Amino acid sequence: MAKEITSQAEDYSQWYLDIVNKAGLASNSKVRGCMVIKPYGFAIWEKIKADLDRRFKETGHVNAYFPLLIPKSFLSREADHVEGFAKECAVVTHHRLMNDPNGNGVVVDPDAKLEEELIIRPTSETIIWDTYKDWIHSYRDLPLLINQWANVLRWEMRTRPFLRTAEFLWQEGHTAHASQEEAQAEARQMLDVYTDFVESIMAIPLYKGEKTAHERFAGAENTYTIEALMQDGKALQSGTSHFLGQNFAKAFDVKFLNENNKEEYVWATSWGVSTRLMGALIMMHSDDEGLVLPPRLAPIQVVIVPVPKPNEEINAAVEKIMTELKAKGISVKYDTDKKKRPGFKFAQYEMEGVPVRLAIGKRDLANGVVEVARRDEKTKESIALEGIAEHVEQLLEDIQSNLFNRAKKFRDDNTTKVDTWDEFVAAIEKGGFAYAHWDGTTETELKIKELTKATSRCIPLENPFGEEETEGTCVLTGKPSKRRILFAKAY
Amino acid sequence: MAKEITSQAEDYSQWYLDIVNKAGLASNSKVRGCMVIKPYGFAIWEKIKADLDRRFKETGHVNAYFPLLIPKSFLSREADHVEGFAKECAVVTHHRLMNDPNGNGVVVDPDAKLEEELIIRPTSETIIWDTYKDWIHSYRDLPLLINQWANVLRWEMRTRPFLRTAEFLWQEGHTAHASQEEAQAEARQMLDVYTDFVESIMAIPLYKGEKTAHERFAGAENTYTIEALMQDGKALQSGTSHFLGQNFAKAFDVKFLNENNKEEYVWATSWGVSTRLMGALIMMHSDDEGLVLPPRLAPIQVVIVPVPKPNEEINAAVEKIMTELKAKGISVKYDTDKKKRPGFKFAQYEMEGVPVRLAIGKRDLANGVVEVARRDEKTKESIALEGIAEHVEQLLEDIQSNLFNRAKKFRDDNTTKVDTWDEFVAAIEKGGFAYAHWDGTTETELKIKELTKATSRCIPLENPFGEEETEGTCVLTGKPSKRRILFAKAY
Repeated sequence: MAKEITSQAEDYSQWYLDIVNKAGLASNSKVRGCMVIKPYGFAIWEKIKADLDRRFKETGHVNAYFPLLIPKSFLSREADHVEGFAKECAVVTHHRLMNDPNGNGVVVDPDAKLEEELIIRPTSETIIWDTYKDWIHSYRDLPLLINQWANVLRWEMRTRPFLRTAEFLWQEGHTAHASQEEAQAEARQMLDVYTDFVESIMAIPLYKGEKTAHERFAGAENTYTIEALMQDGKALQSGTSHFLGQNFAKAFDVKFLNENNKEEYVWATSWGVSTRLMGALIMMHSDDEGLVLPPRLAPIQVVIVPVPKPNEEINAAVEKIMTELKAKGISVKYDTDKKKRPGFKFAQYEMEGVPVRLAIGKRDLANGVVEVARRDEKTKESIALEGIAEHVEQLLEDIQSNLFNRAKKFRDDNTTKVDTWDEFVAAIEKGGFAYAHWDGTTETELKIKELTKATSRCIPLENPFGEEETEGTCVLTGKPSKRRILFAKAY
Repeated sequence: MAKEITSQAEDYSQWYLDIVNKAGLASNSKVRGCMVIKPYGFAIWEKIKADLDRRFKETGHVNAYFPLLIPKSFLSREADHVEGFAKECAVVTHHRLMNDPNGNGVVVDPDAKLEEELIIRPTSETIIWDTYKDWIHSYRDLPLLINQWANVLRWEMRTRPFLRTAEFLWQEGHTAHASQEEAQAEARQMLDVYTDFVESIMAIPLYKGEKTAHERFAGAENTYTIEALMQDGKALQSGTSHFLGQNFAKAFDVKFLNENNKEEYVWATSWGVSTRLMGALIMMHSDDEGLVLPPRLAPIQVVIVPVPKPNEEINAAVEKIMTELKAKGISVKYDTDKKKRPGFKFAQYEMEGVPVRLAIGKRDLANGVVEVARRDEKTKESIALEGIAEHVEQLLEDIQSNLFNRAKKFRDDNTTKVDTWDEFVAAIEKGGFAYAHWDGTTETELKIKELTKATSRCIPLENPFGEEETEGTCVLTGKPSKRRILFAKAY
């Protein structure tokens, strides 16, 4: 595999597409905006899924599955919701094809028109709350803590693999509660679950915060978000958790008898992350040699390459190393392909982002050493075979924290506190987050976007500089502002 | 939870629906033919999925994900395939809704009509082989051993939860090979993987066999099947594996350069099992008290009920038992709910099919014993607390084999070798499989179906009676027959 990828400096966008392609993560399909997730990409997604699923279950959630298709009328019940999703729905109108009697091949059978059109779920609040109406009657039925792993579809005009596709895979949690406080706490808890996962497993530092009214989910009262900063200075919303108030309970008439035998509407949350996380993962750590994966998500953590070819002596040494690594729960691959040269293999595993590479030749064995290369810093050293498993184990941990720390440094270095419009424009042009006062109106947000392409990312829950929040004046309008919020250009 | 279910004797079909409902496995949705899989049902499906996924990976397969939507023209490329699926396709024709200017609410936007209609995948051969065209060039790219876990949709007219639903969950393996022999071996291998899983984990005995030409998958050259016998005497096709020959390679022009640098069409297989397995599981073992689950698939294997209520002494004893059971990898739940009486709980866990129930009261503790009830045979006995974990571990294994053995005895007792038409009709009327000579024509198969509602289930790979196959004459037409095959009424 030749290292034929565009460099970041030359064209960041093409660099991203090249990695997706050359590392075997995804490919385009003939269906507009829909990608094929290839086996290597899917193996990473499976690891993301398994870890998140465990965290959801540990916090008391169970999985279920709801229909793919939603009656058109359901969408219309919540006014903001339909406003948000109607413009990008795939609509099923018929249920049969037929051979055209006029010889035009296979066509839609006009007699198989549906009485009511169905849409492919863009998100499942409506079909789920219609179901919850049957499941919830009393406070004893609450809380209902359900998650669904599913595909959803939004007819996006401009798509990019993982980052924005028409169909994507995600999980959507939908919970029902007896009180506002409990629902609010759930929405915040899931934001923390996401944050801990993304920071500790994906090695991506985050700003946690609340969205402004304009950026809220369609139908939510509060939307919490985690925002990451990519290497090109653009922010990426990586997950959201919504406090839905009683909006969907009212739209679908879901009430419960409380402990005092009084009827109340149910309180709701929903929260989701998607295959978009794969896009964040790729962009966050990778370089001009290809993908860089944090060890905790790498399907193969260590690859061993015999130099120049496998032989009995090398095989015996490798077998011992592999046994030791596997005993430590480290996934390892021994590449015995005789048709490919070591240099070719090195380039291939660099492209695929395998965190650690061991190369073993005859002379290494004679000296009781092995060459250890780390993918993140592109360094190599000669390490004694004795104790090699412990060394690799520690190295994987070092790589995991190194990836997080360098990403955090980059993020912090590119978060700028600004006071004037000129400073704001300069910070956005340079790339990264601008922490700025804003007058709190959607009008100003839209004007800022028009002028700079920057959008409000969040009102962070913790001050990015570890300082107290202060009042001030809006960078654009000069009107009073209670506090600063984060702006950036975003994916 | 009251035991309010219809008895099998009274109405088998309603009994099934009652269990699905009362055991919390699934519920109907407002979308025609689509069910909601409830958390308890989904927990069982997750166990099925995890075990199968492990088996697929152990046999060298990897997972990937392909688009939900398929261009209408793809379906038409393989003549038999379109014939098989066109009649039951959900068709996407538009990509946007709008507010009706005439005030009729939200309607389809006529300006958002797709140039080419898309169908929701009823199965993915076409979209996958269109993709394989880009992935396969040389014999070095083969074999390609890929599986997908996905939802699919077929617009069925008469649906029943799990057994036949418009949308269902499944896995579909799609493999590509350099030779006919290798593809044939793959199709047979996956039939064996299914058989081993269904027999050893689901405790359902199977006949493995080949479908007749008439019952083949649309586009296959051979279809292999596993057939189970339900308690009402009807067969249930539980999984299929297809040798597709070069049909899809030719339809999508997928060729490879073989080792002699000659171009050839690729050979293919596909194979799948679905949430239909849940229907088989429910019907196979359950009784008038509710669901019966084989221990290897039970989300909760052991439930402990304090009698009449939890107290410190009981809690201490239970904690010790739970620690011992968990150390053996046994999943256990302690029901400390004080608001429900023991009898109510007993009925509830019987309904949910928990294999083993322990009940502990003050007097039991004084005597150093615990009451152990097994769900499958509805028996209970008093067992010493000392060594209880070993006892339960052995009991779970006994239940697993007992369920298989009694299902096998039922299946064998209801497989009848018949020689005349009268014997055939009597066997089918009684319920179960009739092993009969048949003249090998589709015409006769259809006539048999018309007269008796029985269909050919398979040409078994092993003789059901452990005998040699013999030639004979067709039970219906008297024409010569090379061998007997299995017929039954089926789901």
